[in-house]
Amino acid sequence: MAVTIRDVAGASGVHVSTVSRTFSAPHLVNAATRTRVLAAADELGYRPSRVARALTTGRTHNLGLIVADIANPFFPPLIKAAQAGARSRDYHLFVADTDENPQVEEELIQTFAKQVDGVVLCSPRLSNKAIGRLREDVPFVVVNRRIEGVAAVLMDVGQGARQAVEHLRELGHRRVAVLTGPAGSWTGAEMCAATAAAPGLDLTYLGPNAPTENGGRSAADAVLAAGATGVLAYNDLVAMGLMDELAARGVRVPGDVSVIGVDDIVTGRHTRPRLTTIAMPTAAAGRTAVDLLLREQAGTITLATTLVVRESTAPPPPHTPSAATDPAS
Amino acid sequence: MAVTIRDVAGASGVHVSTVSRTFSAPHLVNAATRTRVLAAADELGYRPSRVARALTTGRTHNLGLIVADIANPFFPPLIKAAQAGARSRDYHLFVADTDENPQVEEELIQTFAKQVDGVVLCSPRLSNKAIGRLREDVPFVVVNRRIEGVAAVLMDVGQGARQAVEHLRELGHRRVAVLTGPAGSWTGAEMCAATAAAPGLDLTYLGPNAPTENGGRSAADAVLAAGATGVLAYNDLVAMGLMDELAARGVRVPGDVSVIGVDDIVTGRHTRPRLTTIAMPTAAAGRTAVDLLLREQAGTITLATTLVVRESTAPPPPHTPSAATDPAS
Repeated sequence: MAVTIRDVAGASGVHVSTVSRTFSAPHLVNAATRTRVLAAADELGYRPSRVARALTTGRTHNLGLIVADIANPFFPPLIKAAQAGARSRDYHLFVADTDENPQVEEELIQTFAKQVDGVVLCSPRLSNKAIGRLREDVPFVVVNRRIEGVAAVLMDVGQGARQAVEHLRELGHRRVAVLTGPAGSWTGAEMCAATAAAPGLDLTYLGPNAPTENGGRSAADAVLAAGATGVLAYNDLVAMGLMDELAARGVRVPGDVSVIGVDDIVTGRHTRPRLTTIAMPTAAAGRTAVDLLLREQAGTITLATTLVVRESTAPPPPHTPSAATDPAS
Repeated sequence: MAVTIRDVAGASGVHVSTVSRTFSAPHLVNAATRTRVLAAADELGYRPSRVARALTTGRTHNLGLIVADIANPFFPPLIKAAQAGARSRDYHLFVADTDENPQVEEELIQTFAKQVDGVVLCSPRLSNKAIGRLREDVPFVVVNRRIEGVAAVLMDVGQGARQAVEHLRELGHRRVAVLTGPAGSWTGAEMCAATAAAPGLDLTYLGPNAPTENGGRSAADAVLAAGATGVLAYNDLVAMGLMDELAARGVRVPGDVSVIGVDDIVTGRHTRPRLTTIAMPTAAAGRTAVDLLLREQAGTITLATTLVVRESTAPPPPHTPSAATDPAS
């Protein structure tokens, strides 16, 4: 049977709380008592509690996972898969949410650094430089960001974005708007870089946009002003907000404007029309990130994405808004 | 300026790591060295790091929040509100997910007990007795469970369930099925207790059901066999799964069967038909739970729920399945 704090208390003739304090706050214990307690502990082979032990061994058997917004349905499948990976190796996973705030992100990394063995940092909003600095504090793996010297899991949204605008071109669209996401988003930058050279299309980039339904609603004016008949939105929430706002103005999706999202969240399968989207490998990313973290493996793993065509994309109307509203065309 | 570990190392003539070890793992430090380090620390007024300090003061300025399934959209608004409440008082909030597993729930409470100042335990699956035992380990507040001596925030789902079946009765339904949730769910028990005496209705209770879309799909057979024209589902996910499965079998919602959910998750506003549901005060519950926890206040707070009528409820068909399939009626 394991030696307990009670055994040490008995052997050294002090109260249990004194033994506890000797290990947790030795500066609060009288020197002679401390010596007696530690001698008894040595003799019995007593090892202090999990947290105290963690301070010694550097192992808490806990992992942290940081997301930008736990209410965005993009994250739960990633969290669940990371959790399953952690649990299968006898680790607990704690999740924290930054509210899209880089300063909170930095604080959370620093707080986790003292309580967990490693951190999975998803879709960070901090600069590469700030993240590079923080990796001294705790081992971590970044999801959807490429940073020199930091292990990363990337979802190949560029590939998906190229497929999405090609799908619109094949349907007959010419004027396409890309709604970018929040400032500092790697995903948004990848979408722009991947589509910039798309042949046969007149592309407009509109943003930054909040990565939420409200962000999509706010972008409706700019989409209509640009005369776009096809839209690739930063994510499904933005696409859904845009569809709502267009419907409120009597603009039909996909009759007048085709809309494509990114992520393939559950809600997009229930919208009317059902949302065409780029499915992101969120579960695989969560699992892979925990794998990299626990094997302390460096390097970058890129996971493929898939265009899922549903009902929100169709050929543009015969006389497209772009032709009607742009006197130059 | 604060005294640092370097100052103590300098004053006692040892390496910084020795000072660190003296506070974190005193049993690994030679007794004479330990005495010298602690004397220097006392003289300089040095206080060890946050975790070590937490062990002394019992304050980590972190809170834990435990949910049954982070992928259930019921929880994110609760988490975000709890987080906002915690953050406004300079606390970080860590979230952990039990995967609906009582044993994991117990482990997480015990793990959090060593790392946070208090825990919000949402929709627990553990027995009241087990929870009562664990409250020795860490202060906590329970959401949606009533346990002797434990502070609780309850959402009055009973009131909402009564309104829901009354809404069905007013529409002309007589045979109504209630889909209960997982075993051990307080919410499910409340729904049953509140509706059992509903006047003018022939009620059937079907369950237990997994609190997921699959749970709802699996319940379709039993609903049809019961000849119910109205259904109150354990939550919106169950309602959505049931609607999907009924549609797949050519049963119209609400033409043949009316369906009501519980929670008012975002997805239910986008389904076709849009889901009639009992809106749960999730954000208020998250905020209130953190309030109770940080004020270490005992007692129970009950928050009201609201029936939101959308498109999934309507009068029953003229010749209802219950009349057709039940020779006794």
